Amino acid sequence: MNDDTETPGWVVGMSMPEPSVDDNTADKDRLLGCLSRSLGTDKEMMALDLELVRQLPRILRNSNFDIRVSYFKARGTCFLTSIVDSSSDCRALGIAIDLGTTKYVLRIVDLQTKDTLFESSFDNPQTEVGQDILTRIHKSDQSKSNLDYLHNLLIRDLNENIHSMSDSIGLSTQNVTNVSLAGNTAMTHFFLNFEPYWMIREPYIPVANEIDLLKAGDLGLQLSPQARVFCFPNTGSYFGGDLFSGIVYSGMHKREEISILVDVGTNAEVVLGNKDWMIACAGAAGPALEGGASDIGMQAAPGVIDSLNIDPENLAFDLHTIEDLPPVGICGSAMIDLTAQLFKAGLLDFRGKFVPAKQPDTFREIEDIIYLILVPAEKSATGEELLIGQPEIDSLIRSKAAMFTILETLVGSVGVTFQDISVFYVGGTFGNYIDPKSAITIGMLPDIPLDCYTSLGNSSLEGATMSLQYPEVVQEVFEVKDKITYLELNVNQEFMNAFSAAKFLPHTDKSRFPSIYLCFVTHNLSLLH
Amino acid sequence: MNDDTETPGWVVGMSMPEPSVDDNTADKDRLLGCLSRSLGTDKEMMALDLELVRQLPRILRNSNFDIRVSYFKARGTCFLTSIVDSSSDCRALGIAIDLGTTKYVLRIVDLQTKDTLFESSFDNPQTEVGQDILTRIHKSDQSKSNLDYLHNLLIRDLNENIHSMSDSIGLSTQNVTNVSLAGNTAMTHFFLNFEPYWMIREPYIPVANEIDLLKAGDLGLQLSPQARVFCFPNTGSYFGGDLFSGIVYSGMHKREEISILVDVGTNAEVVLGNKDWMIACAGAAGPALEGGASDIGMQAAPGVIDSLNIDPENLAFDLHTIEDLPPVGICGSAMIDLTAQLFKAGLLDFRGKFVPAKQPDTFREIEDIIYLILVPAEKSATGEELLIGQPEIDSLIRSKAAMFTILETLVGSVGVTFQDISVFYVGGTFGNYIDPKSAITIGMLPDIPLDCYTSLGNSSLEGATMSLQYPEVVQEVFEVKDKITYLELNVNQEFMNAFSAAKFLPHTDKSRFPSIYLCFVTHNLSLLH
Repeated sequence: MNDDTETPGWVVGMSMPEPSVDDNTADKDRLLGCLSRSLGTDKEMMALDLELVRQLPRILRNSNFDIRVSYFKARGTCFLTSIVDSSSDCRALGIAIDLGTTKYVLRIVDLQTKDTLFESSFDNPQTEVGQDILTRIHKSDQSKSNLDYLHNLLIRDLNENIHSMSDSIGLSTQNVTNVSLAGNTAMTHFFLNFEPYWMIREPYIPVANEIDLLKAGDLGLQLSPQARVFCFPNTGSYFGGDLFSGIVYSGMHKREEISILVDVGTNAEVVLGNKDWMIACAGAAGPALEGGASDIGMQAAPGVIDSLNIDPENLAFDLHTIEDLPPVGICGSAMIDLTAQLFKAGLLDFRGKFVPAKQPDTFREIEDIIYLILVPAEKSATGEELLIGQPEIDSLIRSKAAMFTILETLVGSVGVTFQDISVFYVGGTFGNYIDPKSAITIGMLPDIPLDCYTSLGNSSLEGATMSLQYPEVVQEVFEVKDKITYLELNVNQEFMNAFSAAKFLPHTDKSRFPSIYLCFVTHNLSLLH
Repeated sequence: MNDDTETPGWVVGMSMPEPSVDDNTADKDRLLGCLSRSLGTDKEMMALDLELVRQLPRILRNSNFDIRVSYFKARGTCFLTSIVDSSSDCRALGIAIDLGTTKYVLRIVDLQTKDTLFESSFDNPQTEVGQDILTRIHKSDQSKSNLDYLHNLLIRDLNENIHSMSDSIGLSTQNVTNVSLAGNTAMTHFFLNFEPYWMIREPYIPVANEIDLLKAGDLGLQLSPQARVFCFPNTGSYFGGDLFSGIVYSGMHKREEISILVDVGTNAEVVLGNKDWMIACAGAAGPALEGGASDIGMQAAPGVIDSLNIDPENLAFDLHTIEDLPPVGICGSAMIDLTAQLFKAGLLDFRGKFVPAKQPDTFREIEDIIYLILVPAEKSATGEELLIGQPEIDSLIRSKAAMFTILETLVGSVGVTFQDISVFYVGGTFGNYIDPKSAITIGMLPDIPLDCYTSLGNSSLEGATMSLQYPEVVQEVFEVKDKITYLELNVNQEFMNAFSAAKFLPHTDKSRFPSIYLCFVTHNLSLLH
């Protein structure tokens, strides 16, 4: 137990006056009357499932009207999710779900002590149907049964994993009363069995941005019969619940200072603001930032290059692989490091083109395309050279330029500058691993002091967890949603001009990256001209 | 169609703006936004079942965003119960249920036109377990399976009858979206599968006085999957939803003048008040007023005596039976007529005792008990004499005295008199048939002008119907419930003194029944002394 036990959570103890001739209201009315006084919530806004009302008389009398109640509320109605004898040692549990496209994470939380009891990460079983979300959406477009299949695949997997996790800590899934789920709009649609068809077609309409607290059973989740599920809301198809979860976890919505939060992925979702205002946008950055545009790009796994250094003097490559195994490929964040290091070493020029002349042995030309030999055949795990071609670098540069232009456009739209930003959160499963120094070097992120950059970790999971610990967090989610302005990015001439200017390393306007310029000026003066 | 089509009911048509790049909120949010503006209801207070949200995108697009919505609201959340293309001829139906202990009545209502489409009355199938409600409650006390049996018996019967009624008018039960049910507290408990155990034991606690709008499917009712059920609330175990339904039907809660409403049965439920205040009480009157204390007492059916007259000159009995068949018994209201006529004819004295001396042939003494020969053997349907014994008259007089004392106590508790009452509603399945003149003659009802008395008919059914026609009626039900004060009747010395005084015909205090006294004074002066 931690100190948070003192902060009221979703569990409340109540000793109620017993009925008498002079105080003979009905059981349900007595309960809701006491609870509404205790929570300061309007009695009309509280609800019990029919089955719980049926059990109420016996629960109240067996406990001598001394009970512990768990509840859940997101806008509108406040649902009671369990009622037990206050002397019972039955713990009300919460499950936080970070529902990612590739993986999902489950965390079991004790709703009273607020402790995390167990956490585990699982592959999203829908990858069987399609690795990327678009493939799955197109599959679901073909028939209702395809959509049902994707939905059921997920629900079955969640049930199995929740069950085995609970088992392993000796608790029953029947004790799970509150579930909080944060995911992108598409994954939330699959979870709810909503057709994502219109989400990906102009004008990009989700089925719902907000959904009431749902009965877990109605979704097929095998938890307590009264368990309710909170899904973080979305603002349109491209700004999902995972972002709202990240915002409340960051705390940027409560501070005077301006912060920015970026979820780096195939789509870049960005939110900028403070306690008074918030503006968000999302745009396509392409798969390159996640390593998806490279033949040898892959997700973090044993043998994957996850960081590297190039000695500026002798141009020697110092690669680090996960678990120090012979290299099999390179992950997205290391691709950014590589690009930054190549540029610093003078092996990439201002336009992002390889400079083979500087070290001819490191490059090879095949069918008019220049390749960097990242790992020679004799050192790779596959026995083949690991090559990075000029087109792969070009693709990464387009992605980083898109990212920078999105950031620039959003910041410019409210008349602030990057220098006004006190904290720059980088999030997303991939974003967490980006080295801000490398990202600044290639002009993907703005040149602000490095200590402004903060990695958020799995902010989606953390926000979902907080919503199970602190009732006010759920309220904050909706306050943020009501406050936020979504900026539709117009890919107009102005945007394209900014994009073109950002397709250089780090940028055509060197004054925007003074730290990079100052750092390189002595070494690579020639390359910058 | 009647004129009421113009008054907004539970159905609303809406032509919504189609989504565009500049107006790209989610389907559900678009719908609730439009609807909340149209109804003036807070968007947060509106809810759609998950399944309806799932269907929403196609419904909206197939109808070009031009839809007709039915909804239902009782305190708290407003539930959408159907959404159809506005050009569809699919009618949203409501079912009003008057759930009586002995019989129940179903009425199918078109929610848009407000027309009654069909109505039928059925025996309550629970009579198989016990004719009276107490027997059923005691059975349900014995085991959960007994309670389930009683509940399921009712639900099955409702399903069958709703199905065959819908069939007979060519409509599907799937079109039934709103159900409104009014019954006494015990029947409402059986309908909801709530244990009535604590209802009938001091301090007489119902499981719930109010219940949210329930999903019909959760109760086992096979209607539209989104159908919601409104149960009229109760105020304690003895003042049920049927009474609230009667109040809103009478309109007494909206008038300046004071009215009284009495539901006459084994228990007498009484409510007194006007638009500003309301006070209610309930007390046991015994089964005699319903004919239950007489060997030949029976419910209205062919051959049952339902009215009678005694010629004051020659003391000849003029009996009327239902369908003019040879008499088999006498119904409750005719028992009141009989007592009044006997008293007026001088065959019953001031104390309620037979006066055989006045017409010896009409009476017979068996084992020290005097019997009135109501129908001689040769004229009865059974071939046997229909007899009424002195104990049966005594029992009726105790019941009428209890009724009068309850009325007197309630009226006295707020410092008004019977003369302050503008309308006196007599309701209940039996109460509707009472001749107020007879009831005044025996001192069961107060001696106020006859035109103050109004029979309400099946007020429980009518109130339930109104709640399907006019949303404001549901609101009024809760306003009445919040306003009403329930007076616990203390059977103390004062009550017992009043009761003793009321055990005479019409009363020991003759000044309270001036019209009776004046009428009789010439004929029966001797009997009054």
